[in-house]
Amino acid sequence: LDTKFPKIGTTIFTVMSALATEKNAVNLGQGFPDFDCDPKLVACVNDAMTHGLNQYPPMTGVPALREAVADKIESLYQYRYDATSEITITAGATQAILSIILAVVRAGDEVIVLEPCYDSYIPNIDMAGGVAVRVPLTPGTFRPDFDKIAAAITPKTRAIIVNSPHNPSATVWTREEMLTLQELLAPTNIVLISDEVYEHMVYAPLQHLSASSFPGLAERAFIVSSFGKTFHVTGWKIGYVAAPAAYSAEFRKVHQFNVFTVNTPVQHGLAAFLQDPQPYLQLPAFYAAKRDLFRQGLAQTKFELLPSEGSYFQCVRIANLGVPEKDLSEADFCKWLTSEIGVAAIPLSAFYADGFDQRVVRFCYAKKDETLKLALGRLARL
Amino acid sequence: LDTKFPKIGTTIFTVMSALATEKNAVNLGQGFPDFDCDPKLVACVNDAMTHGLNQYPPMTGVPALREAVADKIESLYQYRYDATSEITITAGATQAILSIILAVVRAGDEVIVLEPCYDSYIPNIDMAGGVAVRVPLTPGTFRPDFDKIAAAITPKTRAIIVNSPHNPSATVWTREEMLTLQELLAPTNIVLISDEVYEHMVYAPLQHLSASSFPGLAERAFIVSSFGKTFHVTGWKIGYVAAPAAYSAEFRKVHQFNVFTVNTPVQHGLAAFLQDPQPYLQLPAFYAAKRDLFRQGLAQTKFELLPSEGSYFQCVRIANLGVPEKDLSEADFCKWLTSEIGVAAIPLSAFYADGFDQRVVRFCYAKKDETLKLALGRLARL
Ligand SMILES: CSCCC(=O)C(=O)O
Ligand SMILES: CSCCC(=O)C(=O)O
Repeated sequence: LDTKFPKIGTTIFTVMSALATEKNAVNLGQGFPDFDCDPKLVACVNDAMTHGLNQYPPMTGVPALREAVADKIESLYQYRYDATSEITITAGATQAILSIILAVVRAGDEVIVLEPCYDSYIPNIDMAGGVAVRVPLTPGTFRPDFDKIAAAITPKTRAIIVNSPHNPSATVWTREEMLTLQELLAPTNIVLISDEVYEHMVYAPLQHLSASSFPGLAERAFIVSSFGKTFHVTGWKIGYVAAPAAYSAEFRKVHQFNVFTVNTPVQHGLAAFLQDPQPYLQLPAFYAAKRDLFRQGLAQTKFELLPSEGSYFQCVRIANLGVPEKDLSEADFCKWLTSEIGVAAIPLSAFYADGFDQRVVRFCYAKKDETLKLALGRLARL
Repeated sequence: LDTKFPKIGTTIFTVMSALATEKNAVNLGQGFPDFDCDPKLVACVNDAMTHGLNQYPPMTGVPALREAVADKIESLYQYRYDATSEITITAGATQAILSIILAVVRAGDEVIVLEPCYDSYIPNIDMAGGVAVRVPLTPGTFRPDFDKIAAAITPKTRAIIVNSPHNPSATVWTREEMLTLQELLAPTNIVLISDEVYEHMVYAPLQHLSASSFPGLAERAFIVSSFGKTFHVTGWKIGYVAAPAAYSAEFRKVHQFNVFTVNTPVQHGLAAFLQDPQPYLQLPAFYAAKRDLFRQGLAQTKFELLPSEGSYFQCVRIANLGVPEKDLSEADFCKWLTSEIGVAAIPLSAFYADGFDQRVVRFCYAKKDETLKLALGRLARL
């Protein structure tokens, strides 16, 4: 079978997790917790299953879950989406983003992505026959460069994908940056795809600024989020899209003929669990403690630490480590670190279509304290 | 937002289920059971959840589940797929089919569909920028017409979608038909997409003939199946694709950037549950009894019965009912039947891109005996 996507390989997350398992390394590569979710959440899902809620839910999602999402967004970002026409439950954020792109991007349309970016975005644009226009975030700081973004806009620009808190750089967009984006898009009809899957992991004094809280952005935005990341159930594959009714209607055309809908008992379980906001309200403090533990440990190593304002990622510069391996590419360094030091990381080059290498790698600190300490002990050997 | 898919509306299943609920009708429209799954299956999933199996599984699926699928296929169809490279767990059959089409169909490629066909196929082909070439099944019998199929093949034909047991007509392809298809495709490099989601619902003396059991088909086929239909959990949204390694590799490129993977505890639960083949081996007898009950009841009405060789659907002709409504379109008849008689059905016109109306509607008999009897009582009024 001749290939339609010669450039697509196996995602770096799969590759590094497999290597970590093989080498018995501490896996700080792929982003997932090594601790379990709240047993109450499991009980909620089991409750739904044992009560026979096992057949097709509505295509757009279980009403109680859509209501709970609309309530959560309103309480956090002061913007009310209509639960019936503006919220759709998805099989995770990745399925949401592919479906959005298939729904709005026509052959030849341009979509602006800010690199480094999550590795599904550009293949998703390819799948729709669109053209990814890659704009770098500012080297070193990973802040948006609005001059470069403005210069990338053409009459063919159909959409821009923004991701704050940002994977992999862990930056969080400021109010000023959000407002500048709003201003930039105002005279256009560019669609905003706002990937906010780490919305509940922003560390004081910063706070998450959802595109939904900026009226000029909300009116043109698909907001994407993920329950898997928020509730420590990355394997459950469930998230949502919030968007104006006309946008949601277009999205649902693709969604219904992609997955149709999402696991019924998981939806009912989440609807019940979301009645208590504490689990997501407590998340920043929970992860800030892990971040601080991890950063304090890393400060004892030769890695140069970058900020971690949000998400559960920590980037470090690998220059000047003074080990023989210092001339390895990021990708080879990550393999070496996994095999020889016993800690898996992700090379930032995996988030650039051209494999741009800036000597930075990403760790995930969504791990038990003991796991982080074990990794830190190994990294101290460097 | 201007629409990219002006022809896509809300699926007929959603429309009719909503109307059935509103009118308090017996819902024999959308295909799902009104009885529950085996409590053992729920226990298996709960077991996995409570044992902390809640993070990302491998992208291709939990190994034990892929093994169980390969074993099942081998025991039933005497063809061994490699569980590592040739089986992929999907978020249901619809996600599987869209992903296959995105993986193999390029802009302008033609894909042959046999109408009536499931309502996601043609939109899926559109989404890939392909061209759906619609070939009718033989009017009246719904058998494949190989002269028409052969005439539809051009140098641009990239794939053909075949579905046996067939939704909506409930026909099951014979060995001769499968062999004729194999012969027809032999000199081409056309990809076969074989939608076999009703594989475990074929009624004696017939048996399901999987494309995997015909070497000349298996080598060019993506076989798609569904656990939701087999185990009475349509809301769990899980199925699989079996295909030669080179085909699976292309499929996985899209799959990993569509849903990435599928609910972990559900996968582990199914892997455990599949160790016992009895649930699917007993399925034909279970549904044959429902079919017979339903057909015996319908025989007392003025509906003309078509055969139901497989699936859990029963088609009937609505001509000559002698009611004033006999001149309604299929779609309006189904609305009338739902509102006035209290039984929901699906018009066959929903399975034709041009809405072809042959005065046939589809009932689903995956219902408790008491539900079927209630519906039959109401239909007897006609
Ligand atoms: C789908 S596996 C990748 C998980 C993740 O979001 C990441 O590690 O960046
Ligand atoms: C996705 S809802 C449709 C269920 C089904 O397969 C059918 O009724 O044909």
